[in-house]
Amino acid sequence: MNAGEIGEDGLIRRLVLQAPHPARPGYAPGDDCALVDGGGDELLLFKADALVEGVHYESGESGHRVGWKALARVVSDFAAMGGWPTEFLVTIVLPACTSVEWLEHVYQGMGACMSRYGGVLAGGETSSAPNGSPIVISVSGLGRVERGGEILRSGGRCGDLLVVTGRLGGSLAGKHLDFEPRLAEARWLAKSRHVSAMMDVSDGLAKDLPRLASASGCGFRVDRASIPRAPGCSVEQALGDGEDFELLFAVPRDNWPTLSQGWRECFPGLDLTVIGELVACDAGDRLVGGWDHFSA
Amino acid sequence: MNAGEIGEDGLIRRLVLQAPHPARPGYAPGDDCALVDGGGDELLLFKADALVEGVHYESGESGHRVGWKALARVVSDFAAMGGWPTEFLVTIVLPACTSVEWLEHVYQGMGACMSRYGGVLAGGETSSAPNGSPIVISVSGLGRVERGGEILRSGGRCGDLLVVTGRLGGSLAGKHLDFEPRLAEARWLAKSRHVSAMMDVSDGLAKDLPRLASASGCGFRVDRASIPRAPGCSVEQALGDGEDFELLFAVPRDNWPTLSQGWRECFPGLDLTVIGELVACDAGDRLVGGWDHFSA
Repeated sequence: MNAGEIGEDGLIRRLVLQAPHPARPGYAPGDDCALVDGGGDELLLFKADALVEGVHYESGESGHRVGWKALARVVSDFAAMGGWPTEFLVTIVLPACTSVEWLEHVYQGMGACMSRYGGVLAGGETSSAPNGSPIVISVSGLGRVERGGEILRSGGRCGDLLVVTGRLGGSLAGKHLDFEPRLAEARWLAKSRHVSAMMDVSDGLAKDLPRLASASGCGFRVDRASIPRAPGCSVEQALGDGEDFELLFAVPRDNWPTLSQGWRECFPGLDLTVIGELVACDAGDRLVGGWDHFSA
Repeated sequence: MNAGEIGEDGLIRRLVLQAPHPARPGYAPGDDCALVDGGGDELLLFKADALVEGVHYESGESGHRVGWKALARVVSDFAAMGGWPTEFLVTIVLPACTSVEWLEHVYQGMGACMSRYGGVLAGGETSSAPNGSPIVISVSGLGRVERGGEILRSGGRCGDLLVVTGRLGGSLAGKHLDFEPRLAEARWLAKSRHVSAMMDVSDGLAKDLPRLASASGCGFRVDRASIPRAPGCSVEQALGDGEDFELLFAVPRDNWPTLSQGWRECFPGLDLTVIGELVACDAGDRLVGGWDHFSA
């Protein structure tokens, strides 16, 4: 069997079985970041994410935008856990014919993202690849989150409302390269203590919402008409395009009035939309679409 | 200008200038691992390292050996700082035609290395690559080291003896895929407090020794005839083949008698060889050879 026949989630499930895991629940694979206890007042968040030329960006794209995207994707994952970025390592695999100026622009884009959202370049490496290979940029990052302030995918409960920030769909038209990760918004949500589960929408709502519900031991119902769409996008695009990098979270119903009012005061320019609810795990809807690297 | 014209070290020097760095000396790029202060009794070690098909291993190689190598390289970097591994993230970039069974063997090899040397799989991701692309396996790892027990490349002083473990050269014949990182040996050296600087020999002594000397603000003299060689290897091979994953360290002369005697009692099967000394930065030898991903 090859990777294209099994699909991304199936592949990962088979692979992670082969190695020892963290003993503590919540610290094992499956969330936006891994939790690590460094012994200090804050927990560490640990994440690695790669961009592949021809998959995550087109050849000839601006190095600055590619670098920004590579970094911002990891920042978005720290945000999704309620935390913030602190240190990054950057690995670039490239053919010898790659332009040094283009690579400098990549690092400038990453540097601009660090200057805006925090974190520093602590190391990394370059490796050659045979001529004709796509460039691969792998960013691994450490973040921090207050002990007890981390928001997992698994904290949702039956009856919690499902909420998304912003508008979904159409990211490939450009937003996927220069999006602003929802760091301040996620920090505000984390501090509010009103949110039971959270993740960022990177593979499309149709792919990511079932992951959050499943991690929480729930099913879900979604009112498709309520899904906030980017201008000109269909419901299918909003569900399936991916790379929105908006926040998807669950809120106990009783918390919603306070949370939504506070949000409007702090972030008046960014929509917050209830799109459905978590339900019992044997009930609920099914969604079709979203990004799978190895669609079965 | 392209990457092949500037060389690996020159490329890295230009790229790291483009992004903000850690404020504390010793925490910035340039050592085997980045140091991170997590607030606990121990410091964190942070490292990322990638294997590229056709560069670090040949197509058709056993998945188990490839996985072992991918993990053991990072373990060797933790050892080189005096620390030990705790958490790993694994990123694999692969064409959809890649065999799932081969990938399982890769993870089994990584799992075997974790079981032997410590550390757990805390997460990671898979990404597709266009057909015909080489497989890229990027391992990022966290380790720990006692606060104050970390051994940097920069701690060497003029007059310190230069010492290597084991025998160098000829790794490509097979050792590069199933080497045992010198974790126990490095931990013993770290606890002895007799070592002033240390790194692992991954790009060949000719490449790595100048890096240690330069980080310590020194030059070096090497007695070429004293370099311990693997059976059948020339001095040039011992200097330049690379992927030895032995330890190279500096020892103040007064510490050497105690250290070498203690070593023989603990590790009687592994040679410890004095190959030269650190000297003033404007004096010393030059070495030619070693592995450069983008040899200028």
